[in-house]
Amino acid sequence: MISLIDLRSDTVTKPTDVMRRAAFEAEVGDDVYGEDPNVNALEQEAAHMLGKEDALFVTSGTQGNQIAALVHCQPGQEVILEADSHIFLYEGAGISALAGVQPRTIKGERGAMNPSDVEAAIRGDDIHFPETGMIAIENTHNKAGGAVVPLSNMWTIHQLAKAYDIKVHLDGARLFNAAVAAGEPVSAFAGYTDTVQFCLSKGLGAPAGSIIAGSADFIKQARKWRKRLGGGMRQAGILAAPARVALRDHVTRLADDHRLARQLATGLDQMTGLSVTNQVDTNIIMVDVSESGLSNEDWINGLKERGIQVGAMGPGVLRFVTHLDIHEDDIELTVVPAIRQLLSANGGL
Amino acid sequence: MISLIDLRSDTVTKPTDVMRRAAFEAEVGDDVYGEDPNVNALEQEAAHMLGKEDALFVTSGTQGNQIAALVHCQPGQEVILEADSHIFLYEGAGISALAGVQPRTIKGERGAMNPSDVEAAIRGDDIHFPETGMIAIENTHNKAGGAVVPLSNMWTIHQLAKAYDIKVHLDGARLFNAAVAAGEPVSAFAGYTDTVQFCLSKGLGAPAGSIIAGSADFIKQARKWRKRLGGGMRQAGILAAPARVALRDHVTRLADDHRLARQLATGLDQMTGLSVTNQVDTNIIMVDVSESGLSNEDWINGLKERGIQVGAMGPGVLRFVTHLDIHEDDIELTVVPAIRQLLSANGGL
Amino acid sequence: MISLIDLRSDTVTKPTDVMRRAAFEAEVGDDVYGEDPNVNALEQEAAHMLGKEDALFVTSGTQGNQIAALVHCQPGQEVILEADSHIFLYEGAGISALAGVQPRTIKGERGAMNPSDVEAAIRGDDIHFPETGMIAIENTHNKAGGAVVPLSNMWTIHQLAKAYDIKVHLDGARLFNAAVAAGEPVSAFAGYTDTVQFCLSKGLGAPAGSIIAGSADFIKQARKWRKRLGGGMRQAGILAAPARVALRDHVTRLADDHRLARQLATGLDQMTGLSVTNQVDTNIIMVDVSESGLSNEDWINGLKERGIQVGAMGPGVLRFVTHLDIHEDDIELTVVPAIRQLLSANGGL
Amino acid sequence: MISLIDLRSDTVTKPTDVMRRAAFEAEVGDDVYGEDPNVNALEQEAAHMLGKEDALFVTSGTQGNQIAALVHCQPGQEVILEADSHIFLYEGAGISALAGVQPRTIKGERGAMNPSDVEAAIRGDDIHFPETGMIAIENTHNKAGGAVVPLSNMWTIHQLAKAYDIKVHLDGARLFNAAVAAGEPVSAFAGYTDTVQFCLSKGLGAPAGSIIAGSADFIKQARKWRKRLGGGMRQAGILAAPARVALRDHVTRLADDHRLARQLATGLDQMTGLSVTNQVDTNIIMVDVSESGLSNEDWINGLKERGIQVGAMGPGVLRFVTHLDIHEDDIELTVVPAIRQLLSANGGL
Repeated sequence: MISLIDLRSDTVTKPTDVMRRAAFEAEVGDDVYGEDPNVNALEQEAAHMLGKEDALFVTSGTQGNQIAALVHCQPGQEVILEADSHIFLYEGAGISALAGVQPRTIKGERGAMNPSDVEAAIRGDDIHFPETGMIAIENTHNKAGGAVVPLSNMWTIHQLAKAYDIKVHLDGARLFNAAVAAGEPVSAFAGYTDTVQFCLSKGLGAPAGSIIAGSADFIKQARKWRKRLGGGMRQAGILAAPARVALRDHVTRLADDHRLARQLATGLDQMTGLSVTNQVDTNIIMVDVSESGLSNEDWINGLKERGIQVGAMGPGVLRFVTHLDIHEDDIELTVVPAIRQLLSANGGL
Repeated sequence: MISLIDLRSDTVTKPTDVMRRAAFEAEVGDDVYGEDPNVNALEQEAAHMLGKEDALFVTSGTQGNQIAALVHCQPGQEVILEADSHIFLYEGAGISALAGVQPRTIKGERGAMNPSDVEAAIRGDDIHFPETGMIAIENTHNKAGGAVVPLSNMWTIHQLAKAYDIKVHLDGARLFNAAVAAGEPVSAFAGYTDTVQFCLSKGLGAPAGSIIAGSADFIKQARKWRKRLGGGMRQAGILAAPARVALRDHVTRLADDHRLARQLATGLDQMTGLSVTNQVDTNIIMVDVSESGLSNEDWINGLKERGIQVGAMGPGVLRFVTHLDIHEDDIELTVVPAIRQLLSANGGL
Repeated sequence: MISLIDLRSDTVTKPTDVMRRAAFEAEVGDDVYGEDPNVNALEQEAAHMLGKEDALFVTSGTQGNQIAALVHCQPGQEVILEADSHIFLYEGAGISALAGVQPRTIKGERGAMNPSDVEAAIRGDDIHFPETGMIAIENTHNKAGGAVVPLSNMWTIHQLAKAYDIKVHLDGARLFNAAVAAGEPVSAFAGYTDTVQFCLSKGLGAPAGSIIAGSADFIKQARKWRKRLGGGMRQAGILAAPARVALRDHVTRLADDHRLARQLATGLDQMTGLSVTNQVDTNIIMVDVSESGLSNEDWINGLKERGIQVGAMGPGVLRFVTHLDIHEDDIELTVVPAIRQLLSANGGL
Repeated sequence: MISLIDLRSDTVTKPTDVMRRAAFEAEVGDDVYGEDPNVNALEQEAAHMLGKEDALFVTSGTQGNQIAALVHCQPGQEVILEADSHIFLYEGAGISALAGVQPRTIKGERGAMNPSDVEAAIRGDDIHFPETGMIAIENTHNKAGGAVVPLSNMWTIHQLAKAYDIKVHLDGARLFNAAVAAGEPVSAFAGYTDTVQFCLSKGLGAPAGSIIAGSADFIKQARKWRKRLGGGMRQAGILAAPARVALRDHVTRLADDHRLARQLATGLDQMTGLSVTNQVDTNIIMVDVSESGLSNEDWINGLKERGIQVGAMGPGVLRFVTHLDIHEDDIELTVVPAIRQLLSANGGL
């Protein structure tokens, strides 16, 4: 099977040889007993990077986010979050199904909620009202095109939350992209939250898994909820060892993904019929193809025939994501020419 | 205690002598065994008026709405509803806490959701998505100032829902106000829904309770959920008998409440510093007092000293509601003069 | 309709004229605003009798029990309760559906759990275990035949619970029967619990409703959960006023029900083919009819033809319950003769 | 670190070199997109072995069991299961917290529930009752000492369940041990159930993960619930590839574990002060040490000093589990001598 150039998501990265070797050689133990040395090391390394007391390896970002809601909130409370956030749109209404909480959405600007909107959404003391249990921020914000939510915005919301005694959770599935783009350590972002989740399996390139971090007490409760959700694994070092490689070796290289994304975006934006709709802060490009004369399906199929995979993010909108397995040559020699071909075959350009 | 003129809500109505007599003389039985004749008669009369197979007496509108979500939806599904609806704002996140479903809000126009917005919010088949389990409509819409959601709007949403095989629930806490204002029978509105809830205790003036109606199979399930919620009562005829009076005697008189509300609204709107913000379709008036030089608290306390109670519905917004216990003289001789007094005492008018 | 002598349950009592008059004349207000004087008085009177800080009027015993679980427990915890308790058997799995907790049942002796069994069932600290969130006691115990759980048993369990920092809830649907039978005030029983629920609609004879009592903080939370469950009513004084009569006038008279029950039990036990299986502490008689040659259905239908209603509590077991509407003459002149007739018509006696 | 002989559980097995190599070389893809070839192959192989339409890789046995309850049941239903079953005792009350269902426990005989007890526990149609949504069987039964629940017992319960239209789920965490011990294929056991879960990480020796299998429609729903629980992983082939090795190479060798367990049990049972309390069908030995003069802690610490790890399963009861990493020499040269030493040091033998 010839490998396609897969721009659908940064979740599709294949583990590198170094990662595979780490898995192969990993000393392991039973993590339900807390005895897997690679899991323990990964959790400590992650907690340290984030500046949190403790951390927990979970099987996905969704699991980390759900656990945050389960620990921070009581059933019948409300979670304030951005209207296009992953937790609201893409987690199967999990926070309502599992934690019994109601999302209260706020339309943001490039993924960032206006703090005054957040404050207006906090519920007062009234027998009709759910209490506000948590504020969730997504950074980078996927649907806003990998936008970096500014540290200053997070600071203000955090101040507000403290004033109202409400917990702040960061869905940092792509937190390292935000940090690299902003030139700040991840701990700077994590510092304005009570808990933070980040994915090892996206830009960092590990095969699977995420980290949820917070206070020691939070992690103790999170560990039990992970067990209830069935996220407690045995010799999880097979996954934790390559994840440690990812965390050690693949952070600074995210800058390459960002550079390549900007480069591709510039190219696409210059083509007649295509329009890049987002400011490309990180590794995600949103392209409006509605003026191209081709449907989403035409694009997806036409590119697939040319060895390229992309995904749709809405009517007339395609998403391109750069990552570990995408190289400059892929873009220059394959992706850009293929797109030109498709446009010109359709009478465009 | 001198009785105040209470314009806070139509929930404050006191039972009439006819109702009290009905309670006094009510033949009763154990309703958990289905043996209370007044409850049974009330349920049949209500089902008949609504054109539904069956109906159930519940202790509040909230309970009726919650039961609709519990029966129509599965945990992990989504409910589409208006952004200022009672279910979303004022039921303690119950549909998430009890039914495990996520609200998906749409900003409406005078309480009516645009059907194309509704359609856009219906979820497709994707592993990340909650299925859409229910669409809820509120009519009249409280926060939109007692606005009547047009039958045509309900028809379109109902058609849409059928096409997608989604249930429609009507939070008709004030459905009879809508029907009287529109000059249509309640069955016309109920006909565009799978289930409907209306309150006996608001404009209709009964002491307590609501009706939830739908198919016979729905009501069988609703009855069990009512039991789980603790809404199964014993000699409930003590409440059902006056409720039957309300349903028999107090429907057409809602027109008086509407007339009086329009009359009061016209008066208020002419006063300097006050502005009625809603089109007064029924019995609710929203008054912007932010230009009056008086705060909400000033108004609430100032009117209370003059024997009148009103409530706040937001910053700078008061709500006046007419009902069974408010008479033309109350408005002309007490309410209007008191408001003038307050304004002039403050240098206004 | 000729009224049957209804021995199915003490829930079937009809309100007395004094109660009906109280409903008729009741000063009422909107209880959601905390303004119904009869509800407020009832709650204060009940709290005072129980020796608790505060109390709340709820629409049923089930609602009171569910609220106890919702406030005391977190989802994923465990509730220790008797294997034949009402909460476990007859509340539609509500504590799991609404509060997300798992019942852990202990087979008791005449409704009383052995404290050492309770202690053995308390969960230690282990990632696999639910924490024990609540211990629930039922007194009198319905399925154990109205058995009084001794104060000494409650004291020991309460001590145990305090040592482990676990809440104790009393399902006292028939607490007043226990108190009258034991010659102790209800506060003596309530003193060994954190919260207590009792029914106004059973032996006390009110048309509907129950009381849940506990600390002021508990009641504040309970009030919000009552709202979510839809148990918040408006002019609830229509029910609270007769309930106050019940609490004032119908407590000591429970001794009559108990005396009548013992008298009937003695009579039944002497008949060939019948065997009373419970020690009749209060107003409930369990009769084994399996040796009578008649099925449960034969008995229920045969007695119904003779103007008497009874219920089945299991294969070959009937339940007779005495209450406000059952008089000595009913027993002597109708019930006993009818049973003799049925037995002799079937060749027995 | 010198490796201890770890008899605490069969969950502690380390992946073999063949498994590690499989992980190292695994072709992978994004399993959330259904594109991981090893996951897909594993699911098909497992479904085929079990005789089910489809299967799903989940991260643990707990997750498989929880998903069964989530798909088969509605909130407010009841699950019949054995009183010492893993789902009831060791999954953090998950089925109540997540699926909103109430466990109804039945004390079994060597892990097998008496079918007449099961039938008696099925709820009839009554407004007070939860419906029975699922019957769960555990085979082999862990707390009953790895007992094999006989196929005939499963057949009878399955017949019963079909008659009542109730789903049967098999918690087959150690199903392959049952099958090998009974000399039957796993499909024979799976054939008497609607769904089955088995662990790849116990006797089969894979690093992590379990399989849940059933109808194609069940798996479609299970896949979405796995996503909500956060069990959807990306390049899960890193775990699925060694799991395929386990399924291919490690089934028949379970007979060795069983033989070694019986051998060890015979030895232990002959020692004064020790008593094996279970019939050793498979790889689990329960040893009563209460007559040995040593506490559980003495045993656990004393053996640990001698290079052996065991666990407690209750007061005075230790559990020894044989598995892939335990060899005959370990038992003969280390375990048995160490136990003799401990006993004689304490004046026993």
